[in-house]
Amino acid sequence: MSRRARILVINPNSNEAVTEGLRQAVRPLCFAEGPEIICETLTEGPFGIETQQHADSVPIPLRRRIEAANDVDAFVIACYSDPGLHVAREGTSSPVFGIAESGVLTALTRADRFGVIAIKSRSIPRHIRYLRQMGLMDRLAGERPLEMSVAETATGDRTLDRMIEVGRELKEKDGAGAIVMGCAGMARHRRPLEEALGIPVIDPTQAAVAMAIGIIAVR
Amino acid sequence: MSRRARILVINPNSNEAVTEGLRQAVRPLCFAEGPEIICETLTEGPFGIETQQHADSVPIPLRRRIEAANDVDAFVIACYSDPGLHVAREGTSSPVFGIAESGVLTALTRADRFGVIAIKSRSIPRHIRYLRQMGLMDRLAGERPLEMSVAETATGDRTLDRMIEVGRELKEKDGAGAIVMGCAGMARHRRPLEEALGIPVIDPTQAAVAMAIGIIAVR
Amino acid sequence: MSRRARILVINPNSNEAVTEGLRQAVRPLCFAEGPEIICETLTEGPFGIETQQHADSVPIPLRRRIEAANDVDAFVIACYSDPGLHVAREGTSSPVFGIAESGVLTALTRADRFGVIAIKSRSIPRHIRYLRQMGLMDRLAGERPLEMSVAETATGDRTLDRMIEVGRELKEKDGAGAIVMGCAGMARHRRPLEEALGIPVIDPTQAAVAMAIGIIAVR
Amino acid sequence: MSRRARILVINPNSNEAVTEGLRQAVRPLCFAEGPEIICETLTEGPFGIETQQHADSVPIPLRRRIEAANDVDAFVIACYSDPGLHVAREGTSSPVFGIAESGVLTALTRADRFGVIAIKSRSIPRHIRYLRQMGLMDRLAGERPLEMSVAETATGDRTLDRMIEVGRELKEKDGAGAIVMGCAGMARHRRPLEEALGIPVIDPTQAAVAMAIGIIAVR
Amino acid sequence: MSRRARILVINPNSNEAVTEGLRQAVRPLCFAEGPEIICETLTEGPFGIETQQHADSVPIPLRRRIEAANDVDAFVIACYSDPGLHVAREGTSSPVFGIAESGVLTALTRADRFGVIAIKSRSIPRHIRYLRQMGLMDRLAGERPLEMSVAETATGDRTLDRMIEVGRELKEKDGAGAIVMGCAGMARHRRPLEEALGIPVIDPTQAAVAMAIGIIAVR
Amino acid sequence: MSRRARILVINPNSNEAVTEGLRQAVRPLCFAEGPEIICETLTEGPFGIETQQHADSVPIPLRRRIEAANDVDAFVIACYSDPGLHVAREGTSSPVFGIAESGVLTALTRADRFGVIAIKSRSIPRHIRYLRQMGLMDRLAGERPLEMSVAETATGDRTLDRMIEVGRELKEKDGAGAIVMGCAGMARHRRPLEEALGIPVIDPTQAAVAMAIGIIAVR
Repeated sequence: MSRRARILVINPNSNEAVTEGLRQAVRPLCFAEGPEIICETLTEGPFGIETQQHADSVPIPLRRRIEAANDVDAFVIACYSDPGLHVAREGTSSPVFGIAESGVLTALTRADRFGVIAIKSRSIPRHIRYLRQMGLMDRLAGERPLEMSVAETATGDRTLDRMIEVGRELKEKDGAGAIVMGCAGMARHRRPLEEALGIPVIDPTQAAVAMAIGIIAVR
Repeated sequence: MSRRARILVINPNSNEAVTEGLRQAVRPLCFAEGPEIICETLTEGPFGIETQQHADSVPIPLRRRIEAANDVDAFVIACYSDPGLHVAREGTSSPVFGIAESGVLTALTRADRFGVIAIKSRSIPRHIRYLRQMGLMDRLAGERPLEMSVAETATGDRTLDRMIEVGRELKEKDGAGAIVMGCAGMARHRRPLEEALGIPVIDPTQAAVAMAIGIIAVR
Repeated sequence: MSRRARILVINPNSNEAVTEGLRQAVRPLCFAEGPEIICETLTEGPFGIETQQHADSVPIPLRRRIEAANDVDAFVIACYSDPGLHVAREGTSSPVFGIAESGVLTALTRADRFGVIAIKSRSIPRHIRYLRQMGLMDRLAGERPLEMSVAETATGDRTLDRMIEVGRELKEKDGAGAIVMGCAGMARHRRPLEEALGIPVIDPTQAAVAMAIGIIAVR
Repeated sequence: MSRRARILVINPNSNEAVTEGLRQAVRPLCFAEGPEIICETLTEGPFGIETQQHADSVPIPLRRRIEAANDVDAFVIACYSDPGLHVAREGTSSPVFGIAESGVLTALTRADRFGVIAIKSRSIPRHIRYLRQMGLMDRLAGERPLEMSVAETATGDRTLDRMIEVGRELKEKDGAGAIVMGCAGMARHRRPLEEALGIPVIDPTQAAVAMAIGIIAVR
Repeated sequence: MSRRARILVINPNSNEAVTEGLRQAVRPLCFAEGPEIICETLTEGPFGIETQQHADSVPIPLRRRIEAANDVDAFVIACYSDPGLHVAREGTSSPVFGIAESGVLTALTRADRFGVIAIKSRSIPRHIRYLRQMGLMDRLAGERPLEMSVAETATGDRTLDRMIEVGRELKEKDGAGAIVMGCAGMARHRRPLEEALGIPVIDPTQAAVAMAIGIIAVR
Repeated sequence: MSRRARILVINPNSNEAVTEGLRQAVRPLCFAEGPEIICETLTEGPFGIETQQHADSVPIPLRRRIEAANDVDAFVIACYSDPGLHVAREGTSSPVFGIAESGVLTALTRADRFGVIAIKSRSIPRHIRYLRQMGLMDRLAGERPLEMSVAETATGDRTLDRMIEVGRELKEKDGAGAIVMGCAGMARHRRPLEEALGIPVIDPTQAAVAMAIGIIAVR
């Protein structure tokens, strides 16, 4: 293949600041000889994905975007609900990665049981339902919410403190040996959170892009 | 970190030809800016790992090797039984990947249910026990053996034909939507097997190295 | 409440013939003193729901329809993929029933393990994923396809013969003690199929409407 | 069918007051055009079913009663332990519903995970064993006892207060999204409990009768 | 304790020939210094336990027998449906063993997955339901019927031949690594069956008595 | 067989005091007519098995010991991690019992859900992983640590008090109906612990030897 391979990371919400955060998150995975990694906003998406309605508004425009893409070798859907994952897979022969799926699977390589930090408690039943769908409940230690808005987690100074607090409960009360950050917009907190907790912390977008790089490289 | 990161892929059997195959397998994942990937033979290992005794002879020398390693940022144990995975993890603060674990987890990103091609039928109960340990049985479509020796699979011309035959049974009779090659020495058959079957085929060593690259890059 | 209670059964595909079939299917559940049962076509829906894309095109218009509904006491989504079930539940305080969910749960009252007759084999992974999401896999005997189009099943003379054939395999080879008809448009075959097989056969729309009647009646 | 269909609800304990409560509970499901619903006391039953011995004394007289019944189109066993459910099913070609089974299955249509209010803690292991037998444990949020006698729950003023207290724990501590009342004699508390908790509350006898009506209607 | 300990093995059917077979079966476990093992017929029991009605007729007389027993240190219920196991446990402070439970648990010490030989196919759903209740389905390879009557298995010359045939299917087609004989009356075939199949064969009565001896000895 | 049968109980750590404790533990199971029970120290073993490294150092010397054994009819590996169980089974045609496996299986005959008392919290993930491997997680109520060293538990006066404290939490907070002592060196506390807790307490070595006696006796 003469052209350079390309991974398209799609932020399915229309908040450009989140997309910019994704660009920062995946930068360490951009190797000159590896695939180009492009982060893009789904302009038709809602400003944030906090409800089932938000999540269910995404699949069809996402599918259109994916079908319209040229020269893309792998797709990443960068929202922790993995909205549209299956319809995207149906619409392309290229591999499609959901960050929740990849984040959790990567956590399984780092500990016997993992914990998830959610933004809000109302997302937890949706996440649990999805873990059950994936058949991975036996490895879940627990999921606990920050009870902050996506906006707050993106900008607030208190976010890291609160993440450490919740992460400690997952580790100490629930027995989590690794933590998955249950949101696309938390990547910059990964390293300090890992240092504070003393157990591996997974940013799901990074996990998905790493798996995409692996699949593309060996084609 | 000024020095280049390094992944040490350890072939726990002492068959240097297998190690050479690993080098070929991981070559596409060697990016100039990414971690150096070194493949090494565990000289104390048995010539092949076909029995529980073979598998159980590996953990202690592997642990010694890992503890003696300098400047290694991630380890990969390149045998589909993941021998010594937990004792290795206990002995280092660097992440350790087992190829069976990584191969299966990667397959879960490509299909609802996966199939495994084993070399011999006598390995299957050991593999099933391990899948149950990992809590991943709900996604297994089936595992079927080539009934060839490791040596035969490494050299024989018939290997690919037999893999296609077994892969077809996994796909058509068991409903597998992706295939994991259940041996470290099958990498060169990955692409033709995938083409013949029309569903994703995962080489577990490549899967583990990709996950290791991802974890190292974002430290 | 002075007005008569009302159940709105929404056919999320735009095939009016299917809606007419639903009307026939639920007629035996229309009691003068019970809730009125209205069957309606989702005009924005695809003509049939055979792919993930079809299924994922439904939730948002369905949500709009549900939010616009006045004087509806319970909703039934009459497609065996239960598209939009969770987004519908989020959008109304009235109960919402999915026919796949209700059909399978009702089958659990009739036998230890149930079988599902699917229209096409490509729906089966989607159905299995959904059963895993519901946590009900331990009771599944098997799912087998007719390999006919929705159109064919609606009109063809051969449909019942083929359903009996597939139902017999579910009963005899897979050990199913009850059968769920995995499509909204099969209701008229329920009774002859049950007679031919000698085990209970569940029409999922009827199952959902019965559960809706029960919930409404006791408010 | 010329005669009116009939559902026989059998209270397997000999406490006529409980049977009278069942009559009240099912009244909203008596439609003039629907099946007649008859509630009857199993006179050979113990006065209450609080132990395994009580439960195991019921199947044989229940079977005799069922075999002696004429013109009954569906049976409901109205005790939350579902005593004799399988022997009853063996003894008749009419469908037989157990209220625990129907109550739990109905709860699955209202929330991702359900909680159960038991009368006494000593019943909980029996109920858990039964949920495991039904293969439904993945959806259980928790079960908590009132620690009252059946007599107290039937008559005491404090019962509702205590149910609200226990229901809140199931909702807030265990994450239940719906509540099953784990006793045949609690129906009159359903509505106020639901209002107090703000999540659906299922009376299991009503759930079973609704499912019976559905099956009968479509014969 | 000055008196010799005693295990009471109760055959819950009234076929004295079966009880005599139990006496033969447990003879090798009668150690002069160990507990006395008494095999007794439940005279109120049915002549054989082939239906749910048979099984459900046993618990109450069994409970009475157990409560009336003096100087019994452990009870064994010697029918593969374990009828009355829980009501028996409720009625005595001595341990009570069911042969199905003990037989399956013992098989788990001999192989990764076990197979069960049933007398008749109609018992299989009951057995499966019970395995699910015990939470042991993940280790079941399969269950297959002889399709003979209890009487035939007790007397017929063909029984062993048929058991070998069925056992081979469990081993070769289902992957069973050990076999449980799913009936109290098969003990004399254990050794020849084990020799013919080349994998461990468990007589469930012997398994239960051995576990009872162990519990009693260490009191 | 003319010679007396023999069970070899191997303490895989090299602490002779633990072996002496095993001798005491199994004494009640030594029947003159039953198998001779020999307890032996694996001299190559570590002084205690507290880490994965300790556990993984045992299988190969254990296998050698087992292959060198003459006239042994069953083996018991007397360490609660069951180190080397599968490699031992591969190396002999005699049955091999692991005390964790036998202890847990025996607990399943005494209660619906069991609790485990571990010495240290760091062993718990290893034990949970093993329970998942055995497919027995559905019956686990919980596992809690003493947080004492093996040496302390063997000698300290406080051990029993602490075991009672932890056992009460397992019973009252986690709902355990039986307790497995998660260490080979706790046997002398079995009876007083059982009396203090009022629920069955299983010493796993005694459980394994009883199962071994049962298998040998009926050969």
